[in-house]
Amino acid sequence: MSTSNIKSPIINSELSDLTKRDQKHLWHPLTQHKLSSEMLPIVKAKGAILYDDMGKEYVDGIASWYTSMYGHCNPAITAKVAAQMQELDQVVFSGFTHEPAIKLSEALIEILPSNQKKLFFSDNGSTATEIGIKMALQYHHNLGNDRKVMLAFEEGFHGDTFGAMSVSGLSVYNGAFEDHFIKVVRIPVPTGDNNLEVLELLKSRISEYNLAGFIYEPLVQGAAAMKMHDPNGLNEILKICKANDIICVADEVMTGFGKTGKNFASEYMEEQPDVICLSKALTAGLLPMAITTCSQKVYDAFYADEISKGLFHGHTYSANPLSCTAAIAGIELLRSEEIQNNILRITKSHQDFNAKIKDHPKVTNVRQLGVIYAFDLNVKMERYGNVRNMLFKHFMESGVFLRPLGSTIYILAPFVTNEQELKKIYNSIEAALELF
Amino acid sequence: MSTSNIKSPIINSELSDLTKRDQKHLWHPLTQHKLSSEMLPIVKAKGAILYDDMGKEYVDGIASWYTSMYGHCNPAITAKVAAQMQELDQVVFSGFTHEPAIKLSEALIEILPSNQKKLFFSDNGSTATEIGIKMALQYHHNLGNDRKVMLAFEEGFHGDTFGAMSVSGLSVYNGAFEDHFIKVVRIPVPTGDNNLEVLELLKSRISEYNLAGFIYEPLVQGAAAMKMHDPNGLNEILKICKANDIICVADEVMTGFGKTGKNFASEYMEEQPDVICLSKALTAGLLPMAITTCSQKVYDAFYADEISKGLFHGHTYSANPLSCTAAIAGIELLRSEEIQNNILRITKSHQDFNAKIKDHPKVTNVRQLGVIYAFDLNVKMERYGNVRNMLFKHFMESGVFLRPLGSTIYILAPFVTNEQELKKIYNSIEAALELF
Repeated sequence: MSTSNIKSPIINSELSDLTKRDQKHLWHPLTQHKLSSEMLPIVKAKGAILYDDMGKEYVDGIASWYTSMYGHCNPAITAKVAAQMQELDQVVFSGFTHEPAIKLSEALIEILPSNQKKLFFSDNGSTATEIGIKMALQYHHNLGNDRKVMLAFEEGFHGDTFGAMSVSGLSVYNGAFEDHFIKVVRIPVPTGDNNLEVLELLKSRISEYNLAGFIYEPLVQGAAAMKMHDPNGLNEILKICKANDIICVADEVMTGFGKTGKNFASEYMEEQPDVICLSKALTAGLLPMAITTCSQKVYDAFYADEISKGLFHGHTYSANPLSCTAAIAGIELLRSEEIQNNILRITKSHQDFNAKIKDHPKVTNVRQLGVIYAFDLNVKMERYGNVRNMLFKHFMESGVFLRPLGSTIYILAPFVTNEQELKKIYNSIEAALELF
Repeated sequence: MSTSNIKSPIINSELSDLTKRDQKHLWHPLTQHKLSSEMLPIVKAKGAILYDDMGKEYVDGIASWYTSMYGHCNPAITAKVAAQMQELDQVVFSGFTHEPAIKLSEALIEILPSNQKKLFFSDNGSTATEIGIKMALQYHHNLGNDRKVMLAFEEGFHGDTFGAMSVSGLSVYNGAFEDHFIKVVRIPVPTGDNNLEVLELLKSRISEYNLAGFIYEPLVQGAAAMKMHDPNGLNEILKICKANDIICVADEVMTGFGKTGKNFASEYMEEQPDVICLSKALTAGLLPMAITTCSQKVYDAFYADEISKGLFHGHTYSANPLSCTAAIAGIELLRSEEIQNNILRITKSHQDFNAKIKDHPKVTNVRQLGVIYAFDLNVKMERYGNVRNMLFKHFMESGVFLRPLGSTIYILAPFVTNEQELKKIYNSIEAALELF
């Protein structure tokens, strides 16, 4: 998820009752409460629309942090979860199994890159990447290799727990924790222009450090403000890493499940990752869950007569049957003709919108992959500055939930967003360009 | 959750279809699959009973890792979650709020120790303790204190992410990761007999290290096999820590919500913790969620004009409205006369059972706090040895799900377990004593 602070979105000068009650005891994530004290109450969500407590509607232009891709409160999903709640809510996933986890594994393996063979469950993107890091480190530990350093991209973001923070390059506010991090070395993302230099730097990193794994957001760095990079360059990086037995961990927490125009961003490269981290849209925006998948090679390094070579990681609600049920329903929708057509439709709409605004003097660095569309404002501003807050307020006033990151405005709306709702987003963005 | 490996619980020699399908793609937590390859399919759960795919019933003697305290698929909970799914499934919790989170904060504050004022959401016990650790470290960082070392109990367990692993003293299988841990120093738990020595050691730790925080499982160390310690000793430790501004982080992930006979184990001590970590029974065994609560003093250290003094931590599904709804329903049940009477009834039943077996030659170290009952087998065995697996098989064959830890047998059944179901557990344990 993205590390950004929000100025109050409340438009009315009188605080609502819910906002006041919220202020008593709730400490919100990624929030400096002294600067952002008023939270807007959302009371209902349906399809691509959020409703506040005054009845005002907002198009959910970022699908509630890239989760609710099939629309909020989708009855095709909620009916199945409600039925599962009558049968089996929760059971320990060590020693036991259950049909929702099994069916989900079968559904996921069908759409994952072909080398992915095993699924390990957890609860959120941070734990999914922690498990990916542990797979890379313990893979080499189990093989008797002295490799303890992780490789990552500059400006990568992989979560907020200590392991995940360590590999994140976007550590603006991690000052209190940096002394406790895993050893990580970095390379820039390949932009096409710099590919040769990046590959040279990679080779020198490999000779200088005992690299265990490489963790990366494939093609789109979400928290770095939807920064996109070159698939050919990434493919070359993966090729070199794999030739050197560096475990490649693709963090597809944001990019997974159709958003890039393919089921997974990793499909744009010929080289397949050893490990893939999944969360967010995995459970169709209904419930928390994460999965770290891996190749047979990774799994085999843990499969041994020694208990200690196993992965002794586990969370209590691992493979929660309700979350698994939501995920199965989500994958069914993703593979449906309706959603696939929607992905093509939105991709095309974004292209048309881009053609319309790309030459505007305030617009720069336009970029798109599938339904992810982003550009930078050609104005000087700070990441958490007033301009960003002014933009956010403008969008909310016009009934659109967008969450600018620094000078970047991006759209990542649900697949079910209709043309009228997209138009509302585009109009609001065009009006924003005239604010400065 | 507990770090223990299970030998196959399958009793039939022929593998069920679900077990075979499970083996294809699922990598289970805390499992060495080469030694434990066959997972028992659970297809249904109701009240205190689990049902496998052959229709066999098992009393859930550990409430599915201490979560399903009000019984599986409890309609008082599931009906409310099903209704919430029609209204609001998920929304970003930065900048927005919603009624389920607000109502939960109000319900929780009513039962928490009186100094707890703010709630920070995450998804599981590991992230709850990571946030507790971050609160302790950043509290001092924000105040300009050079304090970066954590204090913890020997044999504590706080989770499996890197920060949580660091403070866990039970790191049997963490060899691959130990080079990457936060600096932690330890003291033994106070047993009553050793209190003076523990307090002396604590004072020397304080003078030797710049301690930021103290993280501990109050009174019962779950993964250390329900090891219990002395409330007076713990109270003295807390008093000394608080006098030295060492942030006291009570990990009540296992002990919380009535299991110890009080709502929280921390209520047994006069000194209140600065921070409390909650998960497991928080959501009544339905869905993943965690909360880290704190005192006003802790919160105030983050409340500032500088954005960077905020806690820049966040998970995408933080304060998921469905999980919040399950938690509110759970707290209502916990406070009901029916559940409070059940807690007294089970506590008394355990006492009677204890009186019956405590002098058995195979029984040693009997201990109980509320509905948590444990004893050690007076036989030599390894933590993951064959005796443990034999015991587990015996319990499952007799229709009881217990999960021995090393030589410890313990019961932590749902509050709704009736006398007949308890009797089934007790009988199975008595029969187990005659196995050796």
